Amino acid sequence: MEPFELTLTAAAGEIESRNLSPRELTESVLRRIDKTEEALGAFAHVCADAALEAAAHAEREIAGGRYRGPLHGIPLGVKDLYDTAGLPSTSSSQVRAGRIPETDAVTVARLLDAGMVLVGKTHTHEFAYGGLTPTTRNPWDTSRIPGGSSGGSGAAVAAGSCMVGMGSDTAGSIRIPASLCGTVGLKPTYGRVSRRGVASLSWSLDHVGPLARNVRDCALVLPAIAGFDRLDTGSLDVPVPDFTADLDGGIAGLRVGVPSNYFFDRVHDDVDSIVRAAIGVLEGLGAELREVSIPYPEQVLAAEWAILMPEASAYHQETLRSKAELYTAQTRVLLEVGEMILATDYIKALRVRTLMQRAWADMFADIDVLVAPTEPFGAPLVGAMEANWPDGVAEDITMALVRLTSPANLTGMPSLSLPVGFDGDGLPLGMQVIGRPFDEATVLRVGQAYESASDTVGRIAPVVTPKG
Amino acid sequence: MEPFELTLTAAAGEIESRNLSPRELTESVLRRIDKTEEALGAFAHVCADAALEAAAHAEREIAGGRYRGPLHGIPLGVKDLYDTAGLPSTSSSQVRAGRIPETDAVTVARLLDAGMVLVGKTHTHEFAYGGLTPTTRNPWDTSRIPGGSSGGSGAAVAAGSCMVGMGSDTAGSIRIPASLCGTVGLKPTYGRVSRRGVASLSWSLDHVGPLARNVRDCALVLPAIAGFDRLDTGSLDVPVPDFTADLDGGIAGLRVGVPSNYFFDRVHDDVDSIVRAAIGVLEGLGAELREVSIPYPEQVLAAEWAILMPEASAYHQETLRSKAELYTAQTRVLLEVGEMILATDYIKALRVRTLMQRAWADMFADIDVLVAPTEPFGAPLVGAMEANWPDGVAEDITMALVRLTSPANLTGMPSLSLPVGFDGDGLPLGMQVIGRPFDEATVLRVGQAYESASDTVGRIAPVVTPKG
Repeated sequence: MEPFELTLTAAAGEIESRNLSPRELTESVLRRIDKTEEALGAFAHVCADAALEAAAHAEREIAGGRYRGPLHGIPLGVKDLYDTAGLPSTSSSQVRAGRIPETDAVTVARLLDAGMVLVGKTHTHEFAYGGLTPTTRNPWDTSRIPGGSSGGSGAAVAAGSCMVGMGSDTAGSIRIPASLCGTVGLKPTYGRVSRRGVASLSWSLDHVGPLARNVRDCALVLPAIAGFDRLDTGSLDVPVPDFTADLDGGIAGLRVGVPSNYFFDRVHDDVDSIVRAAIGVLEGLGAELREVSIPYPEQVLAAEWAILMPEASAYHQETLRSKAELYTAQTRVLLEVGEMILATDYIKALRVRTLMQRAWADMFADIDVLVAPTEPFGAPLVGAMEANWPDGVAEDITMALVRLTSPANLTGMPSLSLPVGFDGDGLPLGMQVIGRPFDEATVLRVGQAYESASDTVGRIAPVVTPKG
Repeated sequence: MEPFELTLTAAAGEIESRNLSPRELTESVLRRIDKTEEALGAFAHVCADAALEAAAHAEREIAGGRYRGPLHGIPLGVKDLYDTAGLPSTSSSQVRAGRIPETDAVTVARLLDAGMVLVGKTHTHEFAYGGLTPTTRNPWDTSRIPGGSSGGSGAAVAAGSCMVGMGSDTAGSIRIPASLCGTVGLKPTYGRVSRRGVASLSWSLDHVGPLARNVRDCALVLPAIAGFDRLDTGSLDVPVPDFTADLDGGIAGLRVGVPSNYFFDRVHDDVDSIVRAAIGVLEGLGAELREVSIPYPEQVLAAEWAILMPEASAYHQETLRSKAELYTAQTRVLLEVGEMILATDYIKALRVRTLMQRAWADMFADIDVLVAPTEPFGAPLVGAMEANWPDGVAEDITMALVRLTSPANLTGMPSLSLPVGFDGDGLPLGMQVIGRPFDEATVLRVGQAYESASDTVGRIAPVVTPKG
């Protein structure tokens, strides 16, 4: 086994016991990037020299007895939407070509303080405004998309090109690539993690969080990035617990909500059967399954887009005036459409979101978590524009990608996606675990319970290019 | 002294000790209405028979030993914006002519449960969308406006036509008439009092609260109406203290902020001198004055209107389609303009509001309350369209009326207006006491300290019609 194949948890154990040096680990990861990057295109920028230097520094610190904790010496990829001091930070857009900020995003600074080794910036769908990430391919089948917008982080983590990939999630952009690439991805509660220094897509829906190989890896990253930041207007001052404390506590007696509507409508048969089998695993571990009805199912996508689009247009308003030609055509059209949305329509969407938040809170009076498919299908082929369903409906691919993930953005609830199996094409499929606001601990505990009882989590993708 | 001249506090004492019956009190108030209403036009609807019946009922209860507390048997006026079961509730608009709801607004139900006697519905500027209340005149000089939008409640309380008048406040509509009519008016913290059953002007800026003759009267009404209501999406679940407990505790050592900008810009000389004299009274009582700089002064009115207008248009959208001709021309134009505001502009105003809220919170790290003029002048003449300032600026009268009150709507902070003197025309002038969110207790304590040391609070207006 090569070091790049280790999970964060395993690598941290080896590093702490000095069986593995951060330099060996980083070198292994950089070799993996060399080997896979041409096929994947996961990175907007790889900083091999700086990474090796940081790894050597970590090695000296640890050798000197200054071990900082489980993130020390661990290779990290950061979505290009994040500012990184001294490194190109372009949001994968020509609008920001050559842009090199002077300071790190708050989360990046915290992860570097914890000793992580930044190996590069991962590709995002331009300004995170899409679910495809056209620069990047899926490591399970490079004729397929990795999902987005954190597609670079998804592909890189799945392929072993970094151990943690930071992502952002406005309509599902952490969980979509996690599901399609077969990694674990955590969208924390709205307000839990500072977004400062990360380009905004939609202030009131934006979240940042990690993609990693397994549940414990995510639980180790979260406390490093969580906490109040008064300069992020969405940040909330809520205590940050130790998310690993009760991680192996099991789920006996936990009330697990299973949706009777919305989340299993128009999903591929394999998704239906594999996610239901995973729910069966939870039941076998002692969880009490409860059928629940999702409120306001018809309003989810309308509210999501009526809020997201004008917020994105407000953020981009100046550059849309001065540099319109530098946006890709698709992003530019979306931003221009968003400028035509009336305040009255946006306000009605905010009202619907508030009603939805209250109704979801009511639903959670009877359950501790909700489980559901993350995506309605395995990774689509590059170029696919529609999903065609047996009832004759042709669904726009982007709408399909965000359909099951958007509720957790609108409600702000934490949602973990983890791989629960493979479809008939050998593509990974994800299940979401959605919890109460600021109850990531329970969400992670459910994920860990599932992971311990199965063998679907933690695999390295082979980086397969199908024979033409 | 006639019973209608009593304050709520005084009347309650007489009723509890059975020196005064609710029926005598209500009869006195109804006679006062008879005598003044032609000149004032404070009421949209007077329900004399129902009031006498309710008073008789209260009388029987009290005689039978079932005294409900200080509001029992006290005459109440309710702004026509509020729903009242079985009584016309038209928001002073032809759009709702003849509308008689089946249930009371939450606050009305609570006040009636506390034993209050509803004597009538007071006029509002149509749908609360203005500061003038053209139906109604100022009881200190009937050639002048009472202010608005709660102008009927202001005029009625000042004249002795009811002891408490309920109002609502989106840009100042409780405090404007309180200041111009010489009553005390309290805009509680955003989220403190349920707005359910009160026609909305602007959800995110609307507050409801009382106008009354003195500070203690307001402190007695507030606990009856305050408290969480999960069906009001703006309501917050915060404990409701006894606001009278520390009312006479004094203000020795209290840090009182005095604005160095904004609130004393473009105010009449009499306002400047009289409010500064009132602040001197607070200093004489042991308060520590601290000069503070108001953040974002240039953004207040822009943010207020960019939020208020489209929210109002969203609320009225259906009737503006079906019954446009029934709105007054002024309201209709405002609603139609609000429909043209873009979501991106509204979003920028929300962002400014958030920054403003944070900056005000920072400012309150050094002070306990802020004091300032409520209005830049005494009551304007009916028909005045502009305020003309010495620097040559002609300010739209509505903009001038809301200029000093809007900050507390944007920040959501509690604000009490109380009369602190009279201008050269014999018109009352008000001072605001603004406090931290949910710290109405301190705001009321400051008001009470001032009131105890002066003779400007609690006067009955003479209802003077100037000789033509």
